[in-house]
Amino acid sequence: MRIVLDAMGSDHYPVPDVAGAVLAAREWADEIILVGDRGKIEAELGKYPVQGLRLHVVHAPQIIEMTDKPAEAAEKKPDSSMHVGMRLVRDGEADAFVTAGNTGAVLAVAMLHTLKRIRGVKRPALTAVFRNPSGYTIMADFGANADCRPEWLVQFGVMAHLYARLALGISEPRVALLSNGEEEGKGNALVHEATPLMKQCRQFNYVGNVEPKEVLQGKTDVVIHDGFTGNIMGKTLEAMGSMMRQMIAEEIKAGPLTAMGGLLARPAFKRVGKRIDPFEIGGAPLLGVNGVVIIGHGRSNEIAIKNAIRQARQAVLGNVVESIQAGLGAGA
Amino acid sequence: MRIVLDAMGSDHYPVPDVAGAVLAAREWADEIILVGDRGKIEAELGKYPVQGLRLHVVHAPQIIEMTDKPAEAAEKKPDSSMHVGMRLVRDGEADAFVTAGNTGAVLAVAMLHTLKRIRGVKRPALTAVFRNPSGYTIMADFGANADCRPEWLVQFGVMAHLYARLALGISEPRVALLSNGEEEGKGNALVHEATPLMKQCRQFNYVGNVEPKEVLQGKTDVVIHDGFTGNIMGKTLEAMGSMMRQMIAEEIKAGPLTAMGGLLARPAFKRVGKRIDPFEIGGAPLLGVNGVVIIGHGRSNEIAIKNAIRQARQAVLGNVVESIQAGLGAGA
Repeated sequence: MRIVLDAMGSDHYPVPDVAGAVLAAREWADEIILVGDRGKIEAELGKYPVQGLRLHVVHAPQIIEMTDKPAEAAEKKPDSSMHVGMRLVRDGEADAFVTAGNTGAVLAVAMLHTLKRIRGVKRPALTAVFRNPSGYTIMADFGANADCRPEWLVQFGVMAHLYARLALGISEPRVALLSNGEEEGKGNALVHEATPLMKQCRQFNYVGNVEPKEVLQGKTDVVIHDGFTGNIMGKTLEAMGSMMRQMIAEEIKAGPLTAMGGLLARPAFKRVGKRIDPFEIGGAPLLGVNGVVIIGHGRSNEIAIKNAIRQARQAVLGNVVESIQAGLGAGA
Repeated sequence: MRIVLDAMGSDHYPVPDVAGAVLAAREWADEIILVGDRGKIEAELGKYPVQGLRLHVVHAPQIIEMTDKPAEAAEKKPDSSMHVGMRLVRDGEADAFVTAGNTGAVLAVAMLHTLKRIRGVKRPALTAVFRNPSGYTIMADFGANADCRPEWLVQFGVMAHLYARLALGISEPRVALLSNGEEEGKGNALVHEATPLMKQCRQFNYVGNVEPKEVLQGKTDVVIHDGFTGNIMGKTLEAMGSMMRQMIAEEIKAGPLTAMGGLLARPAFKRVGKRIDPFEIGGAPLLGVNGVVIIGHGRSNEIAIKNAIRQARQAVLGNVVESIQAGLGAGA
């Protein structure tokens, strides 16, 4: 397997990106192709003992920054690490592309300039994957489409269901619509219109509406929503998690006894942190394009990058893209 | 001041409701009118020394339960504690109505059967009020209108701004639209269409888009959104808070040292709990009807009920309803 890593992706590129590639190359036998500024990548690689590891560098002269406007950068930087990397996948020279870069730009480069949309897929979906108490949950759409049509949600269900089954290893994924109440009848117009279509779809096991609480409890494996709502929910989870961590740190530091308690309880806090750490997953797929694309958080550290590469491996091994092409491409 | 409390509101009515009324009557000199099953209320009141407190009981023969379908119950139980209580406000025999009951039913009873919508207000708004690091935030709509038109959002802004200024004591409330990015241009179609209308409105200080993170950080005082998105965000905050509390408890109990640390740090956890406890606010207003209506959580304890009564007092003292009538009723 050959996995392309955008070495110029994360906020602190190429440091965590290269470090994560080294970790991945040590853990699995896959070939990792680092794409980006050759000089910078090789300087960074020089810090590690990489003899025997299947690490290669492909030069890309341009870099899309986090601050770049996605569509504009995708248009004006045709030799960015994202373009070069996804062209390798498109041309069959690699099996998957992993990046912690500008999400909007990944979407634009994939959709408009390189991999293109799978024929039959109306809209691509950004996703988020996280751990729940009994396994994994995948949410789609996480922000590619702020406004959605009901039939797009059904396709997101098909694609995310395939990823859940083939890459996350969930044998019979339950697919639900995110709503403001579990009862049928709750929801906005989009949920109401999508409900009968979800029920009719024979390509997944639709289990009805779920509220955010049920999502976190793992009462479904796949959660479907428009990109605006999904993005708000995801950002709310992240913001609430940070706020609570900060409040707990402040209040524990506020007195000597609580500070001592905090020290003793530190291993427990670390375990909680690990349970909700998005870097344990590392990245989530962009679904609906002709190739495996895994997008990680800009703040990714090397562990997150390595785990994003793991997601890419699993998607390749599970033939996720081919299955989406077969499931939706046939005009299903 | 005369405040009506729905004694049959909370999940465990009338116990916390009556207890909260007693606390409120001790703290403030207001008259509290307990509405509901006279026998049950008086039995409960009998547990407290209430001599000298201005507590009165008004009988209502019917009860709307949490499990009742809102519109149906509002129609078929015309002498419920909600109907009787809100009629007292409508008829000028009381100044405000407080309940921890079925939110949908409160909305239906207020809008269709008793107080009615303020002339000029297109849609009422449910709200949520919570503490941020520097004060209070009010969110609207929290679920009365799953699908909204842009001009409704502007009215929610006017109403919530007046509540923030007159009842929460924020001198120049900042009003923002909830979106999936701070930059102008982010958002769904509703946000895009509402933005120019929010800018044009001279009745509040519009500060642009905010993401969930900025909401929690208190970078705005008033957050405006459709009822579906607001409800999802609110439920996500609640679900994430519970999940983290549960995880921390589990991991702390997992070993003797961390358990000891947890004991020592308990005062810090209590302070964190208090900072994010919705019962510290107790309830939030239903805006847009002809009367002060404060709705608390079904799980309210007596402290929450007392604090919901405080919200009602502040709304009455601030003339919130009259100001909304003046601000929107004049065809503004």
